[in-house]
Amino acid sequence: MRFFHAGKWRECRSVEFRDGKVILIDQRSLPFKTGFVECRTFEQAAEAISNMTVRGAPAIGVTAAYGFAIGMRGAKGGKKDVEKRAAKVFDVLAKARPTAINLRNALERVRKSIEHARTAEEAMRVALETARRFDEENLAACRMIGVNGARAVPKNARILTICNTGPLASVDHGTAFAVIDEANRQKKLKLAYACETRPRAQGALTAWEMDNARIPHKVIADGAAGDLMRRREIDFVVVGADRIAQNGDFANKLGTYSLAVLAHENGVPFYVAAPMSTFDRSIQNGAQIPVEERSEDEVLFFRGQRVYPEGTKALNRAFDVTPHRYVKGIITEVGIIEAGVERHG
Amino acid sequence: MRFFHAGKWRECRSVEFRDGKVILIDQRSLPFKTGFVECRTFEQAAEAISNMTVRGAPAIGVTAAYGFAIGMRGAKGGKKDVEKRAAKVFDVLAKARPTAINLRNALERVRKSIEHARTAEEAMRVALETARRFDEENLAACRMIGVNGARAVPKNARILTICNTGPLASVDHGTAFAVIDEANRQKKLKLAYACETRPRAQGALTAWEMDNARIPHKVIADGAAGDLMRRREIDFVVVGADRIAQNGDFANKLGTYSLAVLAHENGVPFYVAAPMSTFDRSIQNGAQIPVEERSEDEVLFFRGQRVYPEGTKALNRAFDVTPHRYVKGIITEVGIIEAGVERHG
Repeated sequence: MRFFHAGKWRECRSVEFRDGKVILIDQRSLPFKTGFVECRTFEQAAEAISNMTVRGAPAIGVTAAYGFAIGMRGAKGGKKDVEKRAAKVFDVLAKARPTAINLRNALERVRKSIEHARTAEEAMRVALETARRFDEENLAACRMIGVNGARAVPKNARILTICNTGPLASVDHGTAFAVIDEANRQKKLKLAYACETRPRAQGALTAWEMDNARIPHKVIADGAAGDLMRRREIDFVVVGADRIAQNGDFANKLGTYSLAVLAHENGVPFYVAAPMSTFDRSIQNGAQIPVEERSEDEVLFFRGQRVYPEGTKALNRAFDVTPHRYVKGIITEVGIIEAGVERHG
Repeated sequence: MRFFHAGKWRECRSVEFRDGKVILIDQRSLPFKTGFVECRTFEQAAEAISNMTVRGAPAIGVTAAYGFAIGMRGAKGGKKDVEKRAAKVFDVLAKARPTAINLRNALERVRKSIEHARTAEEAMRVALETARRFDEENLAACRMIGVNGARAVPKNARILTICNTGPLASVDHGTAFAVIDEANRQKKLKLAYACETRPRAQGALTAWEMDNARIPHKVIADGAAGDLMRRREIDFVVVGADRIAQNGDFANKLGTYSLAVLAHENGVPFYVAAPMSTFDRSIQNGAQIPVEERSEDEVLFFRGQRVYPEGTKALNRAFDVTPHRYVKGIITEVGIIEAGVERHG
């Protein structure tokens, strides 16, 4: 990812493994301050996932994979000790956030890879190799998502998206963002609309990603998306996903379900863009996806300032689940999946 | 309206005419600071409407009526001078905000009442009488809207609303708020959900109104409303209106259209609550309603702090238009109007 900071262009990934540490762009201070957080222990990696230093399903997955590898450094002795340590590290990281399946899929992958390790040393080496492979595969997948998705974008498109799904959320390239970015490179994009995405205003991260990628964009209040569709000012909607059930129902940032219904009602094609690692093959449908409820203070305060009266409470579910019937296609690295989808109209 | 401030309960209206001035609660500093703004000239009244010191369609209407009366103080001499002055005052006030028809309806009413005034003195007296009558009628209408609307509310209801429509927006009592308040008095309300209503976060005013009226409530991000309906956690939706066309299409705060579509999709009854003065009999349908576009800074900044990167633009239409087919009924002071409405399902 290329970004402009302190007068010059810089290159980095939002998640990197270097010198035995996981190095994360601190997404909490963006778009105004570019800082980095270093995780030297698996507990620090779990905390960074939980407090949203790193966010976005693919980026969380890669962070967890490296976190697992770091955690295996603590293993000592033989097979039994390795297993015990792996179980502990797995549990702490798996609990960091409940909705994004990439987190769990990444951890399962690393755990499986060290199943047959006979020594702590071997487990450490294999875990890190697996994490690196997971990271590289994710990057390759995101690149292909852009290419595959751009084919579905009409000419001169005004594209709507929600939450941030670009390099920050996906280590590099992005998911829904990669589709928009590729459409822009192919000169098929007229304008991208980024939903503000309250309460955490990840739209500010989307805007930062788009600004750096020279994608023409405007931010809108979340309540404006429906009106834009009714006015025929949106030609295409593409969003990311945190978990996709077998039948195509999927969880994504709160507000996604509303966009899907509004797109359906107005005949606007609605696509999900996500790597195959976002599928949860263990569940049949969206009703089984756990949805994280976060602190009400994320709604009641904005940058430390209280917005609502003292007596007021808030509800803050961070994700919602969209039934597959509203989805025209799931854009993945292997192509656009349309199976099981009822079409509009 | 009763509200708790600086350790004690106070009584006031959000718009009052006293000692020759229009006195307004400054809605810009609520819910944390209770301040008042005095308008001694019609220009000040127009400015207070435009900069949202006073907001809410009925409150704007009453402010404009008194503003007109104040403006007629500047009339001198005979019928010709009175007409000239009236035209000028009308124009300035009518331009203060474009969408709410109550503003124009109030002005038309005062202008009509002074049509036959022969002297400046008579015009001034009659204009003020008309403004007072308009004010009293509005209050009586709001009271009846609460009573009429509460009949449609099911028992143990969880009611969703958007923007603020209580005493602040309506001088006293409220519109959609009056329905919720009356349902609460009748013990039919389980919980009210208030949409945050970005970008201006009028949900903070709703919360203030509900807190003072002891209405159990929670605030939600605008993107959460659809998810709540899909989960069957909303039984009733009621919103205000800024202008209603002859066919029942209506303009209201941005985000209302989305709620209407989502309610329709999920089989949740969706009602509009507004005094008859909100109808615009000069237009057939919603396409003819002018929609105010406000400064993009309302989206890009929050309480003076920039949220988005320097290169980012925003779109900020303040209202949207909802087609009547999504509306189950329009709750007015004369009853619930259902004519011309296609039902869901």
